[in-house]
Amino acid sequence: MLIAEKKLEIKEIVKNARSEGRTIGLVPTMGYLHKGHVSLINRAKMDGCFTVVSIFVNPLQFGPTEDFEKYPRDIERDIEILKQADTDVAFIPSISEMYHNTHLTQVDVSILSEKLEGVFRPGHFKGVCTVVAKLFNIIRPDRAYFGWKDAQQLIIIRKMVADLDFNLEIVPVPTVREDDGLAASSRNVYLSDQDRKKACVLSKALHKIRKMVELYKITDVRILLEESKKIIETENVELQYIEAVDLETLKPVTSIKKNTGILAAIKVGNVRLIDNVIWE
Amino acid sequence: MLIAEKKLEIKEIVKNARSEGRTIGLVPTMGYLHKGHVSLINRAKMDGCFTVVSIFVNPLQFGPTEDFEKYPRDIERDIEILKQADTDVAFIPSISEMYHNTHLTQVDVSILSEKLEGVFRPGHFKGVCTVVAKLFNIIRPDRAYFGWKDAQQLIIIRKMVADLDFNLEIVPVPTVREDDGLAASSRNVYLSDQDRKKACVLSKALHKIRKMVELYKITDVRILLEESKKIIETENVELQYIEAVDLETLKPVTSIKKNTGILAAIKVGNVRLIDNVIWE
Repeated sequence: MLIAEKKLEIKEIVKNARSEGRTIGLVPTMGYLHKGHVSLINRAKMDGCFTVVSIFVNPLQFGPTEDFEKYPRDIERDIEILKQADTDVAFIPSISEMYHNTHLTQVDVSILSEKLEGVFRPGHFKGVCTVVAKLFNIIRPDRAYFGWKDAQQLIIIRKMVADLDFNLEIVPVPTVREDDGLAASSRNVYLSDQDRKKACVLSKALHKIRKMVELYKITDVRILLEESKKIIETENVELQYIEAVDLETLKPVTSIKKNTGILAAIKVGNVRLIDNVIWE
Repeated sequence: MLIAEKKLEIKEIVKNARSEGRTIGLVPTMGYLHKGHVSLINRAKMDGCFTVVSIFVNPLQFGPTEDFEKYPRDIERDIEILKQADTDVAFIPSISEMYHNTHLTQVDVSILSEKLEGVFRPGHFKGVCTVVAKLFNIIRPDRAYFGWKDAQQLIIIRKMVADLDFNLEIVPVPTVREDDGLAASSRNVYLSDQDRKKACVLSKALHKIRKMVELYKITDVRILLEESKKIIETENVELQYIEAVDLETLKPVTSIKKNTGILAAIKVGNVRLIDNVIWE
């Protein structure tokens, strides 16, 4: 596996792969890799891509009171995981390589960024879009892989790509779960054993919703949300939002159908967790 | 000369030129071409570029009370001028080709966009950056040509390119002037003969400043601005701003040196005109 720390290096590597006729697949990550990331990489490999995985904890997408400093990092372990997953090249830039200290530009998918997560994390998606736009311009991938776990992020990036005419395809990949149902996330490491048990109430509630829709054909959002809230209330966690929305506009829907999803966030102690169930 | 109205067409044309080893040069315009535009095209041709000129009156960069509707348009005449200038391809998309009706994304070079023109045209540069980012993604030029006439625009686009890692070079081209000194601009057509005479007071003042700096080595901004205001006041025009700024940060400077400029806007009747003198 190649490792590039500089933009010029990764550009050269990608250029060579492209000149050999390879399709370029990008998996953008913040590192501390887990099986969710690995499934993105597997998908890119399965698609025959020359697979670039970026690892960059992007300061722009963290609010001033958020966990940028303590966000988990373990580059040695990440590199091992990338090698095992048969990644072609890891792009691991420093902050100063990515942002000169006079950086000003932000990419904003306005309305979509202000809903749901945006209410609790103002500015977050501007930071995400800005770094992703940069990665797209540096690497010029043919495909970029994003997980449904971060559904709003996926929807926003897909919109940015359409709106700004980025010449690439966004490939959404299903959420990967731990054995206890918890959606794989780097932030799960923040949870104590006890909090982790509490946290599972979210995936449990979403799983119940999925069953109600798919087995019992209950599509009335009012009923589904009531039931899910009842389940979440059985644990001492803070429900920040649970909403049924259109997967393109993020506008609320009243019944579940194709292209809708139920997106939720809870806080367990100090740890924010998001999860969702979607009908593509 | 080829003419493309669809993104897919221009992409195909550019792809073919690139596969023939050509360097791609983009001259983005809003049409109603004048000798300023022609000098941009000439420069691109001189650089050996396969030269793409886009003509698109971008609604996003006009404020609600501005002149989007009445902005001068004459596509037939433009096409003649482009042919005469030996343009390789004109990209003339419709509004619906450029923006689907759910367009949300904006590119914002924040602080730089709020100064000078930004005070009088809030949102203007977001619109400019957004359409230019789209054109860069559609055409993927190796070079893009912008005139010093719109100095703030040039500075902002250059910053956007650096911040978002667009893989291209911005080539600045000197302002072209009419015989009476007025900077070439599509909006000059709005001026009555009488107003045009008044409008010339701006280029006259800026010319005086240039002489004071270059012939008499007067670099004190206070003296230069005082003198220029005195000249502008001789005509019945509204001075909206005249400021000496750093050509990278647009922050005010107190003395003229390399990489500074004096940027100004006046209003003659209902017509806003901008001009500047710069020291690169």
